[in-house]
Amino acid sequence: MARIAVVAGDGIGPEVVTQALKVVDAVLPGVVETTEYDLGAARYHRTGEVLPDSVLTELAGHDAILLGAVGDPSVPPGVLERGLLLKLRFDFDQYVNLRPSRLWAGTTGPLATVKPGEVDLVVVREGTEGLYAGAGGALHRDTPAEVATEESLNTRHGVERVIRDAFARAARRERRKVTLVHKTNVLTHAGSLWARAFAAVAAEHPDVTTEYQHVDAAAMFLVTQPQRYDVVVTDNLFGDILTDIAAAVTGGIGLAASGSINPDGRYPSMFEPVHGSAPDIAGKGLADPVAAVLSAALLLEQLGHADAAVRVTEAVATELANRTPGEPLRTDEVGDRLAGYAAG
Amino acid sequence: MARIAVVAGDGIGPEVVTQALKVVDAVLPGVVETTEYDLGAARYHRTGEVLPDSVLTELAGHDAILLGAVGDPSVPPGVLERGLLLKLRFDFDQYVNLRPSRLWAGTTGPLATVKPGEVDLVVVREGTEGLYAGAGGALHRDTPAEVATEESLNTRHGVERVIRDAFARAARRERRKVTLVHKTNVLTHAGSLWARAFAAVAAEHPDVTTEYQHVDAAAMFLVTQPQRYDVVVTDNLFGDILTDIAAAVTGGIGLAASGSINPDGRYPSMFEPVHGSAPDIAGKGLADPVAAVLSAALLLEQLGHADAAVRVTEAVATELANRTPGEPLRTDEVGDRLAGYAAG
Ligand SMILES: CC(C)[C@H](C(=O)O)[C@@H](O)C(=O)O
Ligand SMILES: CC(C)[C@H](C(=O)O)[C@@H](O)C(=O)O
Repeated sequence: MARIAVVAGDGIGPEVVTQALKVVDAVLPGVVETTEYDLGAARYHRTGEVLPDSVLTELAGHDAILLGAVGDPSVPPGVLERGLLLKLRFDFDQYVNLRPSRLWAGTTGPLATVKPGEVDLVVVREGTEGLYAGAGGALHRDTPAEVATEESLNTRHGVERVIRDAFARAARRERRKVTLVHKTNVLTHAGSLWARAFAAVAAEHPDVTTEYQHVDAAAMFLVTQPQRYDVVVTDNLFGDILTDIAAAVTGGIGLAASGSINPDGRYPSMFEPVHGSAPDIAGKGLADPVAAVLSAALLLEQLGHADAAVRVTEAVATELANRTPGEPLRTDEVGDRLAGYAAG
Repeated sequence: MARIAVVAGDGIGPEVVTQALKVVDAVLPGVVETTEYDLGAARYHRTGEVLPDSVLTELAGHDAILLGAVGDPSVPPGVLERGLLLKLRFDFDQYVNLRPSRLWAGTTGPLATVKPGEVDLVVVREGTEGLYAGAGGALHRDTPAEVATEESLNTRHGVERVIRDAFARAARRERRKVTLVHKTNVLTHAGSLWARAFAAVAAEHPDVTTEYQHVDAAAMFLVTQPQRYDVVVTDNLFGDILTDIAAAVTGGIGLAASGSINPDGRYPSMFEPVHGSAPDIAGKGLADPVAAVLSAALLLEQLGHADAAVRVTEAVATELANRTPGEPLRTDEVGDRLAGYAAG
């Protein structure tokens, strides 16, 4: 029995999570036990609490977390990001931030130069270091003499383990290629650490092709030649930016799934669609649950149910291939169809 | 008489710079006096020197610098970047890194969703602060205990002056809109400084529309809706990444111009095409000089020759509108045509 903590969250979060759990139940009946946790903007407004310690402790006792969406324009920026999402990533040592991007058959992206089926990449983004460490400060705030700093902290330990994960993933994929993205010509200290750790791990994987690109070049090539990427490994902030570009060229964040993974299994990993809470369409049954369902597939894979994960992913492929562009969808009908295909 | 220091540089640099100077001479005959400086990969290999102090002093005595391209795969990464390009930007206090992107009539970008003529934006990138400060270090290098840091340094002085420049530019444009891009929800100290300086300058420009976007969202919208941007102001590293995306969606860095500007006029500003030295096609007369010519137009504008700048830019528009896609071009023929149009 896998114990899943469900954080449905705000806006369309509950709607899409319901469908994701429906599909999981269809593909692995009775295998998953869920507990719901009320976190996000609504709870923050009601109680002033973002993530009480008692909840953090309870979450730690689960095998994985499935999150719908948290956030609302009414919450000051940073509160839920730092207090909930980043806190979970750091406290649960979720050092692999996994973000696959595929241009699915049946969908269209914004690029005239790329055909459906041609893009299938995954970004392995570092999740617990870099500029996200929260190391920074300010002096003489609100005066003309103000200075503000942000520090990127990078350890061999933290860098090597995420690179190791990227190579392990690449070794299981068809093209077996890893692209390191950094900015070694400007960020020389961190860049050198990343480059040396990358070279060391690459030496253990003679079967995996490697390349290096500066982040500005990678951002450009993701737009002009996204087909060239297989596995991309990069630091926390570069990964934040590159994964949104990858999502954009494959049809938008509406279809993008992500996992914040602790590969050691010491802490629960967390899976969530990249899209937000979309308050404008919340409660109307119009949200596309595909990103949440794909996130659930990543969850299943992480928990060792690789076959079930493939079936869910194939169900999504079938659903998208059969869609008529422009036709409105109903959240629950999509969930029903996906459950049917996946059980199939 | 305007005194221009010309750094033709490596690879295709000399070829494209020759055409740019030809066009300048056609539009403003006899107004520009040039001095050539031999800098770049070739000089580095020949003498071991990157930028001798004596040359730096001589460059400082000019009104502007026109640079072709420096670099070659044979030079270790960082040597010319830190030693030449970034040294000039920092020593000459070139705090406005100006990068316009237009999807010109007659050209095609990679986006199916955007028509020629619809994109006309300029990124005002900070050029002397942030993660480019070179503040960082490493401990326990080459051991499992290694830690490497990079520090982003931001001052109210440095941030406010570049934002001021962005608003001044926006006020002269048709749409009069400035988008601030940062990552205030994670980089809270620097982000807050940027946001407060932005709000303060915005208050002086009630006629200019403003918006804020996180860098990941901006990277995505540059791909899905580049039309929405007019003037974008952002920090040094974000600007590095966003300008390459903007170049990619408007047909690639082959057409992209840039200026590293000291608006105070205390030091010379530097203008250069965004493309590199392209050693593979160097010396063959195949390089497109348009990016160098557009960089020269930015130079003319900075030196107060606004009419001449417009004529050069219009010449490029005519050239691009008349091109037959796929037809090979000759560097000198393009230069001749542009000179003809510009002299008009
Ligand atoms: C919400 C924010 C803190 C987060 C990040 O920057 O990591 C988001 O952009 C993401 O990519 O998951
Ligand atoms: C060459 C490099 C140092 C430079 C930068 O990062 O600024 C380049 O990418 C640019 O955009 O001008």
